[in-house]
Parts: sequence; structure tokens; C-alpha cells
Amino acid sequence: MILQPIVDIAEICARKKVLNAILSPGSRCAPLTLSFSRHPAIDVKTVSDERSAAFIALGMAQMSEKPTVLVCTSGSAALNYGPAVAEAFYQQVPLLLLTADRPPEWIDQLDGQTIRQPDIYGNHVKKSYHLPVAYNHADAHWYINRVINEAINLSQSFPPGPVHINVPVREPFYPETNEKLTYNQEIRVIDQHYPAVGLPDEMKNILQQKLKTFKKTLIVAGQGRADASLLSFLESFTISHHIPVVADVISNCQSLENAIIHQDAFLGIKEQTLLSQLAPELLITFGQSVISKQLKLYLRKYRPARHWHIQPGGEVADTFQSLTDVYRTTPAEFFKAWYTSSGPAMVEQESYLKQWKNADQMVAQSWGRHFPGHTLSEFAAVRSVLEVIPETSILHLANSMPVRYANYLGVRGKGVEVFANRGTSGIDGSVSVAVGCALGTDKIVTLVTGDMAFFYDRNAFWNNYLPSNLRVIILNNHAGGIFGLIKGPDRQPELEEFFETRQPLKARYLCDEFHIEYRYCDDFSSLQKHLKGFFEDGNQPKVLEIETDKKINKKFFTEFKSSIEKIYGN
Amino acid sequence: MILQPIVDIAEICARKKVLNAILSPGSRCAPLTLSFSRHPAIDVKTVSDERSAAFIALGMAQMSEKPTVLVCTSGSAALNYGPAVAEAFYQQVPLLLLTADRPPEWIDQLDGQTIRQPDIYGNHVKKSYHLPVAYNHADAHWYINRVINEAINLSQSFPPGPVHINVPVREPFYPETNEKLTYNQEIRVIDQHYPAVGLPDEMKNILQQKLKTFKKTLIVAGQGRADASLLSFLESFTISHHIPVVADVISNCQSLENAIIHQDAFLGIKEQTLLSQLAPELLITFGQSVISKQLKLYLRKYRPARHWHIQPGGEVADTFQSLTDVYRTTPAEFFKAWYTSSGPAMVEQESYLKQWKNADQMVAQSWGRHFPGHTLSEFAAVRSVLEVIPETSILHLANSMPVRYANYLGVRGKGVEVFANRGTSGIDGSVSVAVGCALGTDKIVTLVTGDMAFFYDRNAFWNNYLPSNLRVIILNNHAGGIFGLIKGPDRQPELEEFFETRQPLKARYLCDEFHIEYRYCDDFSSLQKHLKGFFEDGNQPKVLEIETDKKINKKFFTEFKSSIEKIYGN
Repeated sequence: MILQPIVDIAEICARKKVLNAILSPGSRCAPLTLSFSRHPAIDVKTVSDERSAAFIALGMAQMSEKPTVLVCTSGSAALNYGPAVAEAFYQQVPLLLLTADRPPEWIDQLDGQTIRQPDIYGNHVKKSYHLPVAYNHADAHWYINRVINEAINLSQSFPPGPVHINVPVREPFYPETNEKLTYNQEIRVIDQHYPAVGLPDEMKNILQQKLKTFKKTLIVAGQGRADASLLSFLESFTISHHIPVVADVISNCQSLENAIIHQDAFLGIKEQTLLSQLAPELLITFGQSVISKQLKLYLRKYRPARHWHIQPGGEVADTFQSLTDVYRTTPAEFFKAWYTSSGPAMVEQESYLKQWKNADQMVAQSWGRHFPGHTLSEFAAVRSVLEVIPETSILHLANSMPVRYANYLGVRGKGVEVFANRGTSGIDGSVSVAVGCALGTDKIVTLVTGDMAFFYDRNAFWNNYLPSNLRVIILNNHAGGIFGLIKGPDRQPELEEFFETRQPLKARYLCDEFHIEYRYCDDFSSLQKHLKGFFEDGNQPKVLEIETDKKINKKFFTEFKSSIEKIYGN
Repeated sequence: MILQPIVDIAEICARKKVLNAILSPGSRCAPLTLSFSRHPAIDVKTVSDERSAAFIALGMAQMSEKPTVLVCTSGSAALNYGPAVAEAFYQQVPLLLLTADRPPEWIDQLDGQTIRQPDIYGNHVKKSYHLPVAYNHADAHWYINRVINEAINLSQSFPPGPVHINVPVREPFYPETNEKLTYNQEIRVIDQHYPAVGLPDEMKNILQQKLKTFKKTLIVAGQGRADASLLSFLESFTISHHIPVVADVISNCQSLENAIIHQDAFLGIKEQTLLSQLAPELLITFGQSVISKQLKLYLRKYRPARHWHIQPGGEVADTFQSLTDVYRTTPAEFFKAWYTSSGPAMVEQESYLKQWKNADQMVAQSWGRHFPGHTLSEFAAVRSVLEVIPETSILHLANSMPVRYANYLGVRGKGVEVFANRGTSGIDGSVSVAVGCALGTDKIVTLVTGDMAFFYDRNAFWNNYLPSNLRVIILNNHAGGIFGLIKGPDRQPELEEFFETRQPLKARYLCDEFHIEYRYCDDFSSLQKHLKGFFEDGNQPKVLEIETDKKINKKFFTEFKSSIEKIYGN
């Protein structure tokens, strides 16, 4: 074969430090498979289920902060990438999707594995390219080189995300027996350089003046990575200005001195006196989505006069229906180097911070009462897990209840970085993302998941690379327990069959099948016992299945919520 | 809530005999879930993995020959339907996809489970509709009623296929405790009536004259359903005109007197004398794809002077690169009521038929030599299965090798209807389609699958409806064995890791987990033993796992091919 421009794709990737590729088997994609698997600098893994492959790639890209390459054959293979592509798009994780295709003349001619692949990811990729089939004109070589360079650069430009390259290939797909691939050492690479996008001095001065005019300034941090320089600037800024930072568990800002972390518990109370006191005049936001529905509803009700949002580029969401100013810089640059304010507004701001901190601490002080330490509920189980999770490890939280429980509780002070598939908030790829993440780091990676998300994505384990640093905690209530906890479905006669979708499985068979260390508990004391040593090193991934009773989960959660009402009721 | 137009969707479906719905759990889709699950005429099942749900729906639609309704929540759920939607599109199976969505103002505002759903299936649905969010104007009610009627009609118009309706829903999603849904008994239904599209007499007369001018007329039947009236007309036509019918196993035409069924074996031989004798002057085709790559290559090399294709409507493929005439009628109508020709051309046509039949019989007569009856290979296993498969049962053949083995062997004379996912030829949904098919019939449904397709789609079993009439034969060679059998990958050092993707699993754990009767064999005599009673009634699905050795499979297949060369070599 020797399709030199195809061979050179791997070389361009390697030069641009795109060093991880996940391949799924196929014939049409053979030139791509060979190009990547023979390249000495690129780490290649094969995952057969493309749905899982793409989520694993996403988890790897989270760790490397570089695009992961995905290669699949023509046909429906490409469609199985779909859910992970959308998650990567909204979670802003770079992926480079290389889908092999028939040449265009064979589309819709009843050949096997032939569908309409151009633009197959619709609006959920940053761009979709289509390579030429014929390479006889020199411009075709230039074009392919340019597209690969552009695609890699684009996937990493703010906001990062998936980029699709459709690659039509004619037969033959395979080199002759003695044919050697040669990577072009003279290949052109287009590098992209990012100057810092700091605030100009005059704009910072104006902002400092403006900030002084507000007595109630609140920061809300959306989903984001643990960013040491951002946290350092934000710490100085919020301490010197007495500004509370509402920090969802996925914001990775809960270590801040002024972090408010139990907002999900107290912003939903009926009593409005406290809530109206907490209402901001100025709201400053950055990052992606927030989990807390109560926070969204609260801020849409108590709208700030001004809402500044910090985002270097791209479309801006108006999550709280109050956006007035967008600052096109990074949060780190924005919060850097403010002088300390003083004056009468600062005094009021200081007491505003205290009100938020008090509200937050009232929840924290009540934990002891909520968790008597002998009854096993999901909520209590998540608390126990978060207490013993190793320092500086990585925590993945699956949708739908685990991420919410953790968001009530908070993850504080241990240098744990938290991830969750909150781009699309699906249950479809949580396990695979955790597997991919564990493949990309030496740290312990813990996934906390419900039974539905776990079994949905069970093909996450169907590969030959299961990482021994992976820990999975399954909260098994044999159903989509969330539907019994929210108002509406809980009162429908169809609850069990059509909303919760009861399912009887336990994870033991699956763990035996895939050689995963398996632990099981269904009471509080055996949970404590099994958690001991669970995070220690081992030769295989470990699963701890915690079986709970839906009724107890519901009773516990309902009591927790009504006790929160009581705390703030007077 | 009471969103009457949403409630009425189920009523329109019921009136139009669209009686099966597969729901996947979610909150946004609750009004649809309740509308369908409370409707007395509609059979509703819940399947949690949307990828599997959609393939199950496809299998059910194959049996009912009516669209199956699919309901999912907003977000990535809809994307998991993608692979099955493409398969349904190309296999021409009707589906009605109802995807719940946020109202448009909340798209891209960082809310959970919110993606860009309009047109999410791209070019792989017949049409994508988008329902309104506000129902206060009377036109909105008319519009929704019209869209549901149109969508159902369109999904069944030739060629049938999937139709998408995106359904934005505002909160509240759930009725109050005592709120009852009332189905509108006066609902308008738009019925679609199909007059027969027979050939006009004058056209038929011209065709009869034209046909006489050819001495070598060949029919090739593509994938299609077992259609008694078509088979009856085709039998008369081909017998009286001495026309061979090349019938792939998925054409369901192998019971014809003049059926040629081993073409895959002999059309690939090197010796060209016979092949040039078999070359048609006139080629007549109908139906969808053919499996046999040898047939395609053969007809593209030996191109007929004229190629008539019969298809009532829709885009036409030019699979053999020789198309000259398209007849816009059904195959049954086309082959109905021809008078018998005679004359010199008929004599030559008769000897042409004999040449095809001889070529075909030479393969059949050699079977005994190929299958010594003691060595277990995949090919021999498939032959043993086809010998004992029950009469008038249903056979599903998974991609990639099972459908090819069966196509070499043929399935003749037992009234067995054969299905395969040859729309996109993916391995992604074969098990789920077989499950869906078994749910839609009382007949025994047998799936023959390789290990890759089986484990890929293992979530097919993750539902509460596993049908006891389902039988699964797994040919487990622990890899994508096809890559070792085709030229190209077999000589790459990457064969095992990156093409075959060796996987160590056996199905026992999975069968234990899902309460499926499990049988296992790894030699020829225990295969025979286990096949006894395998097809008898039982209370649960049954799996027979046949473990084979890739090397033996390859040796056997290679010897088979070279012996075929020898048969025709002189």
C-alpha cells in the first residue's frame, strides 16, 4: 500500500506530542492502524467496543491534557463514538477522531460497513474534516498535512474539544510482506503559540473601582480542573476582598479558605429570610457547569444586578439568566494582582461572607447528627468513602446520585482532584472514563458509581489493559434510585418498572469474568472493614460493591432534607 | 402536567397499529413514558442501555413489520440510538424515535443532559421532526397531530426506515397524584393506502419481447424478507424461462428450484473458463445488499449488456456498475404473470441455467470431503448447526464470519427465514436484534455469532424480558478471527494485537449472571451431543458456546478454498 500521507499522520501527531491512540479493530482503517501502531513514540491500545474506546480516550485526555487519537473502521463504528464525542464537546476535552471511510463513489451502493460519514458528529465536534482519496496531485499532500496540523491545533484551542477527520481509503489496505513504513522526517509541523491574555491595566483599574461599589459580591466556580495558579490568585483575591466562593465538588475549588461547599443542602430551604440575605449584588463566575440545581434556581430567583463571567473565548452560557459582562481572559489572569480594597463597602462585604460561611457551617456541624454511624445508606456510604479516599488521588463521580451525594458532602483538603461526566451528564461512559484516566496516571483513581451507570458501561472492562490503580465503588440499589428520591416519579404507579427500571444484578460475576478483585458489603460495619486496605496497591483493579436498600436510602435522604429545613427554619 | 398533545401520541400510535414501544429511563421523557405505559393497547418494555434498546426495537419491527416506538430522555441517550438507527435506515426497518429534549432556550446553557438534538441522526433517518414547546395556539395541536401521523406513515412508505421526532418538554413532567391521563377518543388519524404498482400491460409486452433477445439471463436476489407471493411468482418465472437465481443466504430465496447458493465458493476461482461461460448478458436484480464479495467482483468484471433493477421507489444503488434500467414496481408484481417463452434463445438459456446449476452442485457434492466429521472448526460447527436448526424457525447471522460461513453453506428447504444486520454490517447490535426478534415471535430464534459480536453487545441481556425462545450459538475463537482469514492482515506482525484483538472471555459468567442456560463444547462429538435438545422448549434462553482454535479454523478454511480451486481447475 504505502499511503505516505496516511503514514505521516502518526508522525505529525508524535511531533505535536499527541502520544496516545486508542484503536478499534477493522480492515478499512488498517493503514491508520499500522501507521500508529508502528510509530515508536506513540502508545497504542486496542479497545473493541468503540463506545467504550471513545470514553477511555476521553479519560486519557483528561490526564495528558493533550488530544487522544481515536481510530475506527468505516460504518456504524463511528456512530458508537457519538456519546463520548458529545461528552468531550461539552466537557471541553480534546479528541482527534480518525474514522476510516470508503471512497465517496461507494457510498450508498450497498457495500458493507458503508454509511454517510461526513459530518457524522453533527454539532458536537469543533469541526469535521474530510481527507481526499487521491494523492497524485501535490496539493493533496499539502492538504492532508495542513488538515492534520489544523485539527490538532483546533482541538486544543480554547475551548478544547473533539475534532473529526474522515479518512476515505481505497484498497489495498495492507502493505506487502516486506514493505516497510517510513515516517517522513522532514514532515512539516504547524505549532500554535498562546500568549497570555491578561487584563490590560486600565481595565483592571476600572474593575477595581467597580468592585468597590458592591457590598455583596459572590463568586460561583463551575466545573474545572485543579489549577494551582488559579487557586493561588483566587485565594488572595477572595481573602483580601472577603468574597465567598460557591464551589461545587466538580469545581476543584473546595480547598479555598472562603469556599462554600454545602450550598446544595441549604439553598433549597423554604424559609426565605436567610436566602434573601445571601443574595449577591455582583456575581462573578468562571468554569463550566454547576451540579447544584438549587444554586441555579436560587440565583435565577435572586438575580444579581451585575454578573461578570470570565471565559477566554467561545460561546457563553447564561446559566443564571443575569449575565451582563463577559471578560475574555483566563480566570487565573483575571484574579491575579488585585490591590486590597477597604472602605465602608468592604465592611458589609465582610459580614456578607460571614453569613455565607455560617450557613455553610451549619450544615457541616449537623453531619454528626445525620450520620449515626450504624445504618447503611448510600449517602452514608459515600461519606465513609470520602473520609478514607487517599490524598492527592483522583475521584470520578458517576451520574446521577453519586455526584449529588458528593456535592452535598464536599471533598475538602486532601488534594483530591474531582471529575464527572457533567458535559452531557449521561450515565453512559463513567466507568470507561475512569479506566482511561487510570491508564493515564500513576495515582489511585476512584470511581463512585450507581449500579445503573456501572452495568450500562460494563464493556469498559473489555480490553487487555485494566489498570491496577483503579478502584470502583458501586452503590447498588438495584435500580435508578434517583427516581424514588425526586418528586414526581415517586408518586407514579410506574415508578418501579418504567422509571427506576429495577435490575437484579450484582457485580460479582462481572468481576470474576474480568479478574477484578471484588469486595461486597451490605451493612455499615462491613463497609468500614472493607474500606480498610481497599486503596492499597494491588495487581488488579478493585471493586467494592455496597448493596443498599432503596427504602432506607429514601428515608435517610428525606430525613436529612427535613432536618436541614429545621436548622434554618427559625 | 397533562400535556394532551403528548398523551395523544400514544393514542395515534395505537390507532395506527403501532403497538410496541421500548422505553429507556429518564425524567425529561416522563410525559412520553406515562403516555405509552398507561395506554391499554400498547405493549411497553423498558431497556436501560439505549444502544441495545434501539437494536431490540429493530428486531421487534422485523417481526411486526410495523414501526417500534423508541422513547428516551434528553442528552447523550439519543446518541446511543445512533448505531441502530443507521442499521434500520440501510436495512429499511421502520422505527419511530421519540427523543425528549429541553426547550430550545436552554440548549447550551450548561444544564444537565442537554445537547443539540435537532437532526441528531444526520442523514440516517428518513426525516427529523421537531415538536413545538408551547401548546397554547390551536395550530400547535394540529401540528403535533399531523407530525405524528406523517412520521408513522413515512416510516412505512417505501423504503421503510427510521423517523425521528424531537420532543422538547417543559417542567412539570409528572402528573399530580390523582391526575388521570385521558386519551382523546376523537383523535384524528391519517391513513395511508397503497394501491398495487403493477407493470402496465404494454410495458410487460415490451419486456417479454426484450427478454427473448437474451440467451444468458441471470437474476441476483439481494437481502429481503421471505415473501411467499414473490417466491411463487419468481418460481414460475424462472422455471419457465430457465433462469438461474443467485441467492445469498440473506435473500431468503434459496428455496427456489433454480437457486444458486454456493456462488461465494466458486466465483472466486482463478480459472476463468467457467467464469466467462457464466457471464450474463442480462442481469435482473431486486432486494438490498448481497454478502458475497466474489459475486460483486465477478459481475463488475463480467458486466452484463443490460442490467434491470426492480425497486418501487427511493434511491437506487449501482452495486455491479452496470445498471441500465430501473423498474418502479415491487419484485412480486414484476415477476407476476409472464407467458412462457420459446425459440432458439430459450435453448441456449436452458444450457446457461445448467452451467450455473452444475457449478453450484460441484460445491455441494464436495461438502462431504470437506467436512470429515471429526475435526471441530468454525465452518464445520456452522454446518452442524444449520443441519439441525428447526423448521420454520428464524435464523440471525452476526457479522462478520458467521454470515459468511452460512453464505458458503446455504440454508435450504426448511422454511427458515434468515436475517442479518447487513444494513451497515456492524458487529454492534446482533445480539440485541435477535433478542428483539425473539420477543416479537413465538418461533425459535437462533443467533449464530462470533465472540466479538457477542461480547460487544452483551447488554442485550440487561433487561427483564429475556425470551425463552432465543438460542445463541457462539463461535468463540477469542478474537476477530476474520482478520486471520483474509489476505493482508494475516501477514502483519500486528495481527494478533491490533486486528484480531485477542480477548480471553468465555460466556459462562455472563450466562450465570443473566440466568441463561449455558452449554459448552470444544470438540466435534460434544458439539453433536449438545446440539441435541438445544432447540427444544425451555424456560430460559439457551447459549451454546463452541470454542475453536484459530489455527484449525484457518487451516480448514484455506484447505476448503484450495480444494474448490482444484474442483474447477481442469
